[in-house]
Amino acid sequence: MRNLLASIVLISIAAIANSQSRPNYVQYVNPLIGTRKMGHTYPGATVPFGSVQLSPDTDEEPFLIGGKYNKETYRYCAGYQFDDPTIVGFSHTHFSGTGHSDLGDILIMPTQGVLQLEPGSADDPKSGFRSAFSHGNERAEADYYRVKLEDDDILAEMTATTRVGFHRYTFNRTGPRHIVLDLKHGIYDYDGKNVRTFVRVENDRTITGFRETTGWARTRTVYFALQFSKPFESYGYKDFDPSPYRGFWRKFDQSKNFPEMIGKQVRAYFDFDSGNKDPIEVKVALSPVSTAGALANIKSEAPGWDFEAIKRAGQKAWNDELGKIDAKIDDPNEMVNFYTAMYHAFLSPTVYMDADGQYKGLDQNNHRAAGFTNYTTFSLWDTYRALHPFFNIVQPRRNRDMIRSMIGHYDQSVHKMLPVWSHYANENWCMIGYHSVSVVSDAIVSGNLTGPEANKALDAMAQTARTKYYDGLGDYMRIGYVPVENNGSSVSKTLEYAYDDYAIAQAAKKLGRKDVADEFAKRAGNWRNVFDPSTGFMRPKSADGKFLAEFDPMKTEGQGFIEGNSWNYSLYVPHDPAAMIKMMGGKSKFAAHLDELFNMHLPDEFFAETEDITREGIIGGYVHGNEPSHHVAYLYNWTDAPWKTQERVRMILKHQYKAAPDGLGGNDDCGQMSAWYLFTALGFYPVAPGSGEYQLGSPAVSSAVIRLENGRTLRIEAVNQSDKNVYVDRVELNGKRVGRTFITYPEIAGGGTLKFFMSSAVDGRQ
Amino acid sequence: MRNLLASIVLISIAAIANSQSRPNYVQYVNPLIGTRKMGHTYPGATVPFGSVQLSPDTDEEPFLIGGKYNKETYRYCAGYQFDDPTIVGFSHTHFSGTGHSDLGDILIMPTQGVLQLEPGSADDPKSGFRSAFSHGNERAEADYYRVKLEDDDILAEMTATTRVGFHRYTFNRTGPRHIVLDLKHGIYDYDGKNVRTFVRVENDRTITGFRETTGWARTRTVYFALQFSKPFESYGYKDFDPSPYRGFWRKFDQSKNFPEMIGKQVRAYFDFDSGNKDPIEVKVALSPVSTAGALANIKSEAPGWDFEAIKRAGQKAWNDELGKIDAKIDDPNEMVNFYTAMYHAFLSPTVYMDADGQYKGLDQNNHRAAGFTNYTTFSLWDTYRALHPFFNIVQPRRNRDMIRSMIGHYDQSVHKMLPVWSHYANENWCMIGYHSVSVVSDAIVSGNLTGPEANKALDAMAQTARTKYYDGLGDYMRIGYVPVENNGSSVSKTLEYAYDDYAIAQAAKKLGRKDVADEFAKRAGNWRNVFDPSTGFMRPKSADGKFLAEFDPMKTEGQGFIEGNSWNYSLYVPHDPAAMIKMMGGKSKFAAHLDELFNMHLPDEFFAETEDITREGIIGGYVHGNEPSHHVAYLYNWTDAPWKTQERVRMILKHQYKAAPDGLGGNDDCGQMSAWYLFTALGFYPVAPGSGEYQLGSPAVSSAVIRLENGRTLRIEAVNQSDKNVYVDRVELNGKRVGRTFITYPEIAGGGTLKFFMSSAVDGRQ
Repeated sequence: MRNLLASIVLISIAAIANSQSRPNYVQYVNPLIGTRKMGHTYPGATVPFGSVQLSPDTDEEPFLIGGKYNKETYRYCAGYQFDDPTIVGFSHTHFSGTGHSDLGDILIMPTQGVLQLEPGSADDPKSGFRSAFSHGNERAEADYYRVKLEDDDILAEMTATTRVGFHRYTFNRTGPRHIVLDLKHGIYDYDGKNVRTFVRVENDRTITGFRETTGWARTRTVYFALQFSKPFESYGYKDFDPSPYRGFWRKFDQSKNFPEMIGKQVRAYFDFDSGNKDPIEVKVALSPVSTAGALANIKSEAPGWDFEAIKRAGQKAWNDELGKIDAKIDDPNEMVNFYTAMYHAFLSPTVYMDADGQYKGLDQNNHRAAGFTNYTTFSLWDTYRALHPFFNIVQPRRNRDMIRSMIGHYDQSVHKMLPVWSHYANENWCMIGYHSVSVVSDAIVSGNLTGPEANKALDAMAQTARTKYYDGLGDYMRIGYVPVENNGSSVSKTLEYAYDDYAIAQAAKKLGRKDVADEFAKRAGNWRNVFDPSTGFMRPKSADGKFLAEFDPMKTEGQGFIEGNSWNYSLYVPHDPAAMIKMMGGKSKFAAHLDELFNMHLPDEFFAETEDITREGIIGGYVHGNEPSHHVAYLYNWTDAPWKTQERVRMILKHQYKAAPDGLGGNDDCGQMSAWYLFTALGFYPVAPGSGEYQLGSPAVSSAVIRLENGRTLRIEAVNQSDKNVYVDRVELNGKRVGRTFITYPEIAGGGTLKFFMSSAVDGRQ
Repeated sequence: MRNLLASIVLISIAAIANSQSRPNYVQYVNPLIGTRKMGHTYPGATVPFGSVQLSPDTDEEPFLIGGKYNKETYRYCAGYQFDDPTIVGFSHTHFSGTGHSDLGDILIMPTQGVLQLEPGSADDPKSGFRSAFSHGNERAEADYYRVKLEDDDILAEMTATTRVGFHRYTFNRTGPRHIVLDLKHGIYDYDGKNVRTFVRVENDRTITGFRETTGWARTRTVYFALQFSKPFESYGYKDFDPSPYRGFWRKFDQSKNFPEMIGKQVRAYFDFDSGNKDPIEVKVALSPVSTAGALANIKSEAPGWDFEAIKRAGQKAWNDELGKIDAKIDDPNEMVNFYTAMYHAFLSPTVYMDADGQYKGLDQNNHRAAGFTNYTTFSLWDTYRALHPFFNIVQPRRNRDMIRSMIGHYDQSVHKMLPVWSHYANENWCMIGYHSVSVVSDAIVSGNLTGPEANKALDAMAQTARTKYYDGLGDYMRIGYVPVENNGSSVSKTLEYAYDDYAIAQAAKKLGRKDVADEFAKRAGNWRNVFDPSTGFMRPKSADGKFLAEFDPMKTEGQGFIEGNSWNYSLYVPHDPAAMIKMMGGKSKFAAHLDELFNMHLPDEFFAETEDITREGIIGGYVHGNEPSHHVAYLYNWTDAPWKTQERVRMILKHQYKAAPDGLGGNDDCGQMSAWYLFTALGFYPVAPGSGEYQLGSPAVSSAVIRLENGRTLRIEAVNQSDKNVYVDRVELNGKRVGRTFITYPEIAGGGTLKFFMSSAVDGRQ
């Protein structure tokens, strides 16, 4: 299946290559990768970092049923599951790869025949407006998606600009035609999630409105403006949760051809001339602040009706972004993996402002981004590890604007905290730590954020890390760790806070702010406070200094960890592996310990209880499908067996990334999983962002040219590259042997050639 | 009781008189008038046309119980009922005199002792944060309200600027002190009315937030900023309708001292040092657009903490407004009635924009009022009759800004309609007709709205009146009346549309727009289409031209009328009473018919079924307590017995307006009932706004000087005025006998002296 799919993509986009002078990277992108099982990616149309992610949703599993969590909803974090037989419609906002969700705003669905305002069931799609589809009639490219809706034989195509989704529906039958505009629909929906929906029919082809939701983001509003390519003849709506008030307050009939529709769960429909089979095109712009802003966004980005031109521009934008690395890999499937990883890495954070710079701030007031692009969707517990470090190399300008957006968040935050996990002017507090500081530190240490801006950012980092009421932080500051009795995931928090504190100290050192550096360098050692020498694991501890009696390093639940057991989390001292290894008994004992992790069997009972981890994402007891262990394979570099790092990372690349819909072993997590791939495939990885160091592994590319924004290029060459030659004899930078297991940011930014000499046997050291 | 209360007011405000050079009119204002039974006024603090109406709410009757209308809620349209024994708290927005309701935003309540977050019951106020109070410990003045909260012996005082409510709470006991900030509370509340509430604790004395509601206004948001005069020590909240999502999504404890509170029904509390008895002062600013706007409004209007200065400025503003008419009436109770009527007339429409001019428009986008003050709360079915015509004489500049606000509404309306009944950026569609056109017409005909602005306004009027899908208007345009089978209240609508069309025609005539004048002059005759010569009444008619068979002119329900029966509504041809009288059998038959109306007995069965009408507001079968008949007493002027108008109006003044809490015979309806009083007490009344004519009645003042904005004054004198001398022998304007039953707008605006020669017997004609 995977070879087949890769070929389809290669053939289908071949046409584009000819029209472009630059190599065609877009041909290698397969947006379907990760859409089966737990990748949680979406196949729809979007431009790099676009505000609009226009994508099919295949089902509508409620997040809560009778107030209880519905486990089925987890599969629908991105709205689409490859194995589903039907499509409910096309909505405009999707997270890529998250393990919890929201969005799915402004669903559009074309239908013919008798009007249906319920989606119907997947078993019997004709019972509602949803339609059967098959992958044989589906194509997904960067910024282009098409599918045949089989129920009514309608060809649905879509593309997008940053803020505008562009739909084209081609009808092959005659008969009454309808476009359903569903504001009830959402991802991770539940009774009470929609707090208000609003539709205005401005004229016979223009609609505006908004959808206000609660849920993960508690005060989210998505404003939209919609234009049809031709006038509709009639329209109407139904509120699927009508206000009891409106039951009392009867006025003249407002359900049909009345241009204002307000309710909690509005589904509107628009009827078009049935004698005609011309395509109906629809443009939907989003805005964070107003319907006026959304209308202006259409004017600014997609004033006309040239679908092909929008698609061409979108694919050119993708090619420019993907072209920041010119990679060569013999295996065409790996080319697909590489550029699809880049594609996934460049989906979020997403632009969050109108064309004129207005956006909604965390304080719920409107702001204007002055001199930068404002972004949202910061899945920082995931993305601080490799995605932002990848940006810091390949997209430093954009990464700086992301940091500026984070500083805006800080300024507007009543807590005076940088984001934890934020989206759409909301802090959702997801996961743990304050990993914004890692992202900012990495930019400061590498010299990409400087001057007063860097100093202000440092203040924000320090202030964030001193928020005593945040999630055990007061205790941590007082006694040096998060005590188990007051807080779940106490050990995970202690370990991650300690790394974050290191990151702050690194930035402070770079900026010559000794007081801050000292304060946080001291805190960075707090990981020692939860290490239990008697077991050799990190272990929950109570405020009185006693370790939790009942302890099993295989278990996660009730053990002071989150999304990982002690076996994995105990290795989380990215900023001082040497000290950790020493504490754990020295290099060789530690290497054996790591071997045990990769080779052990994690029983189902422990695995099943651990949130956000699936069997596919596990190698032995090592969990690649979730983030806490993403640095672990590189820890052999601190032992006498760096070759084990080389071997492991190549093995992980093979096992966890496939050019197939089920190609991702776990949630892509807004690009973190993909960024791991990219770094690793290029031959190095940022174990401790903010250190300025990148641990050398084993490149999977034959060669790659990173086109740096400073005008230089870094060429990576893997001499004697092959699937078997996974070991690195030696590494040379610009002809000079690299006498250590890492390279530095200045070395990368300096450009030149980084040469890996590959071998099939462990017969040398780099 | 009423004399006693009048005296209290007179004595209590005596002090103010001395400090002002102008006569003290504020002393005559008694905001408690209308707070008992059905006046639906509120006693709290507000400045003229102020955005903030800071007033006690005495109970919280839900609007719907189990989805059914709760009749008890009707008493609480303004939040306060005089006979209630307890106060729940002080909220910042109140309609004055409406018969349906909304608002009651941002309730504040001081308490001591154990914290209580439920209001408790009126029977046992100590069961919650509400408190017992008594009228002996209560004082209501223009822009000042005080009451002793007996449960905890707290003196509550309040005053306001346009956008800021200023509270002062004086504690007489020691012990834990709390301020409850209740965003759950509302007027006409029901399950589902609050869609979101939001509180941010900006620092230890500043709070911001908003309350989003549905209900009468379907997309209303009130933003606020609150400042305490001293820091609180701790705080917290409870969401009384917690999201099921939050039950799933457990994070660290955010219920106490966590500065962000989001939910559907948030009640927050703030704890103050208990050792101290210093007053706690609170300022609460409102904004239509943002918390940033609310904070700026505090800065702009009430930056300091001088309660007395704010109160002085507010009362001076009132005295300036009230001083626009210097009235003399011997009976001190009538002086209270007169100036309280002016007070009530000057409460709404209310200013609806930030200090910088920003406001939320009907399109839900933010706008900036350029060169005018934006208003909201247009209860036009009521206020077009006498309130706006009163403004057009006494407040033409402000009335013009109200019209500009209505034009803004039109511009932002997706229907391209002027407001029907609008408040807070919402059209609530209350009642019938499109009476904005009457208000605009009156201003155009009188020369107060001119040039391109007037022409644009005329376009808006005509466009409004051509909205076919609006409430039977398509049928009306097609066949000349609203047919009974498709529409409730068909006769009322036909009659009111016909008058409105007359108003449009008048404005068009004035502006020389013959086509529009002709179109609407023709439509203005449509009242004839529902007159049934066989009964002599207006009568429901079906589309095929047949009158409804079962017809009882005493009944309202199912009879094609709204808030009035055919006996009252049949007289509604204000723009052509002569033609109507002729149709009804001529002058003397008509006079007898009117006599019968005033003398008949309306059986309870008919009265009980008629919404918005109470026994107190009825004289015979004539309903003064609601609007449709407000012009009726003046119709004798078209017969040979104008003396009956004189007699009736004086009788109505006596019976329907009393200087007592139950002094209003019906809802004051945003000042319409009071405006009727004012016109009538001055001796003339606008039977048909837009005609430029004012029917002469019988003045109740001894004299009055209207200080016109054009710099002139109109002096009204009633020679030989007394309670018995209600008949008018003759009327002289500037010494010249007025040889007709009316005066004109140019005569009023021209100034001079209008002299009524009063008599106890009908021995002359004017």
